[in-house]
Amino acid sequence: MATILDVARAAGVSASSVSNFLNDRRDKMAPATRERIQAAIAELDYKPSQVALQLKTGKTATIGLLVPAVANPFFGAIAMAIQHAAQGRGYQVILCNTFRDPQRERQFAQDLMALGVRGIITGSSLLNPEHLSELVSRGLAIVAFEGDAAAAKPGIHVVTVDNLMATTLAVDHLVAQGHHRITYVTGPAQTAARVARLKGFRTAVERHGLSEEARVHEISLPQNQYGDDMIAELGVEAASVLAGQPQRPTALIAMNDLLAIGLAAGLRERGLSIPQDIAMVGIDDLFLARLMNPPMTSLRQPLSAMAEAAITCLLGSGETTATESLVFPPELIVRASTSRIPHLTVETLDSP
Amino acid sequence: MATILDVARAAGVSASSVSNFLNDRRDKMAPATRERIQAAIAELDYKPSQVALQLKTGKTATIGLLVPAVANPFFGAIAMAIQHAAQGRGYQVILCNTFRDPQRERQFAQDLMALGVRGIITGSSLLNPEHLSELVSRGLAIVAFEGDAAAAKPGIHVVTVDNLMATTLAVDHLVAQGHHRITYVTGPAQTAARVARLKGFRTAVERHGLSEEARVHEISLPQNQYGDDMIAELGVEAASVLAGQPQRPTALIAMNDLLAIGLAAGLRERGLSIPQDIAMVGIDDLFLARLMNPPMTSLRQPLSAMAEAAITCLLGSGETTATESLVFPPELIVRASTSRIPHLTVETLDSP
Repeated sequence: MATILDVARAAGVSASSVSNFLNDRRDKMAPATRERIQAAIAELDYKPSQVALQLKTGKTATIGLLVPAVANPFFGAIAMAIQHAAQGRGYQVILCNTFRDPQRERQFAQDLMALGVRGIITGSSLLNPEHLSELVSRGLAIVAFEGDAAAAKPGIHVVTVDNLMATTLAVDHLVAQGHHRITYVTGPAQTAARVARLKGFRTAVERHGLSEEARVHEISLPQNQYGDDMIAELGVEAASVLAGQPQRPTALIAMNDLLAIGLAAGLRERGLSIPQDIAMVGIDDLFLARLMNPPMTSLRQPLSAMAEAAITCLLGSGETTATESLVFPPELIVRASTSRIPHLTVETLDSP
Repeated sequence: MATILDVARAAGVSASSVSNFLNDRRDKMAPATRERIQAAIAELDYKPSQVALQLKTGKTATIGLLVPAVANPFFGAIAMAIQHAAQGRGYQVILCNTFRDPQRERQFAQDLMALGVRGIITGSSLLNPEHLSELVSRGLAIVAFEGDAAAAKPGIHVVTVDNLMATTLAVDHLVAQGHHRITYVTGPAQTAARVARLKGFRTAVERHGLSEEARVHEISLPQNQYGDDMIAELGVEAASVLAGQPQRPTALIAMNDLLAIGLAAGLRERGLSIPQDIAMVGIDDLFLARLMNPPMTSLRQPLSAMAEAAITCLLGSGETTATESLVFPPELIVRASTSRIPHLTVETLDSP
């Protein structure tokens, strides 16, 4: 493919002259020069690259996608959906793994701005996007996927599933199956999604009068530098702790399916069966959830619709000054991991 | 962040003058103009964007990564490893999902070239990279991850695990456990990796004198347009067929872990247990393999080392005209899905 340099060489002019020609700055150009450039473009079948054209606007047909770790199948699914939606508008996606480190997130955002991205989508939004607000003030468009819709910052659009509803539906479902001793297993309240999910859990168990029996089990994650396969590994460890508790829970809700996969493996290692000994609900409904042994109940996120909305929001950004928040409802997908266990509703429930 | 246009405005010059200044084409520039541009750059704290600097070379500090579908956790892991390795050299990664469609692959490669990528890595290499060779002749550097090292095309470097060795090790392991009726489950011979894995299987069973008992079961995949979660779904269906065979296999080797996850779910639906009824070996060793129920034996690919090699190869490309092929050995990770079953070695083996 001919480059602007090839054209410049063929026409015997500088690359910036070719650039001027391409960007319609031809008034000070000698007619002979114009013709030589035109001829060279035709001869070499030169198609002006984005690189040359973007000098005008400083932008390329690219968007940035910042996810904690694309090796997490949930972020793999998001990256797939975002790329597909972007491609439909003629945009390419630059992928960055942030490990949930604000410094890394900010550095990527800066580097992407320098590359001329049209805007960025953050795939899992840190609780406090302060580290990005300076870039917003410099004109960077941001859509926070899974951000906190209630606390949207100016210029940071939010596209998210209703995370509060996700844990609410999970609790309601388990209570309907006769469970009282429900434990919510979560990582530290580091992201907007985690905070909302925890709040949904707390509010729902209180409404059901289960504040005494329901528990929250927080797993500790290394700060700012974990790949997400570690979440599953920590689930294995957490299951071991939970299995040994004197008042063992009869049901677990995991903050996401990846953690649930680890919890399930850990319970199995401790000789416990799902759902006979402990029922389990995940969140995200990864395609893996239905393939687990047993298949796992989960809360599905409408990722395709959310990705389309995120791209529309990002590309429309700048047309208005309004900051948008779009919240999508999750859907409860019931599978064998929460099959009703008859003994749960009788007194023996309390002697594990 | 100030753009080149802001500087041009502040200095009262055209963007191309600023570009000339940045690219050291200052000899024909009036000293007063130079000073105005310099002052504007200082005042606005302007950092020349990649966009401006790249006009010189036509390249940006980006590479393209083409994978069939990043929602497949294997390609998620590859994307993670490649991005990490690229970041270490100051490069960003543009992610594209090709669905193994040559047309889509070619279109992406063209678009990425126009964006000025330093080169592209194809995450799963189609059997015949003809559709990319024209772009190679135009100067696009390509590293085929999982390409066919034996049939490297000029200008297309190959970084791959030894796929032939992967299935060879799988067969040797199963035979050592007493298995004869081993079935290799694979998709169509559409990629270099699949062809090599199939060949490794055929050669190994022949060497063990098992050509009669060993089988190949090919699943059909829709041509050129499947997301990879479909591979797991087709595994579920294939398991149902295999479970009903009169001479049911005692062991399965899946072309990859994703297919194995589907096969395991399908066998379970048919009431068969792993490894008691059927042993199972996957390939790739996704982090999910050890979390399966039961944990699955698999062949591990050294992805971090492979990703580093791919980036080194890509960025070094152009320095020499040699086409490199780098082949990494896989490692057999033995888990419960291939625990030795005593009855397998006795006569009753033949009456399923």
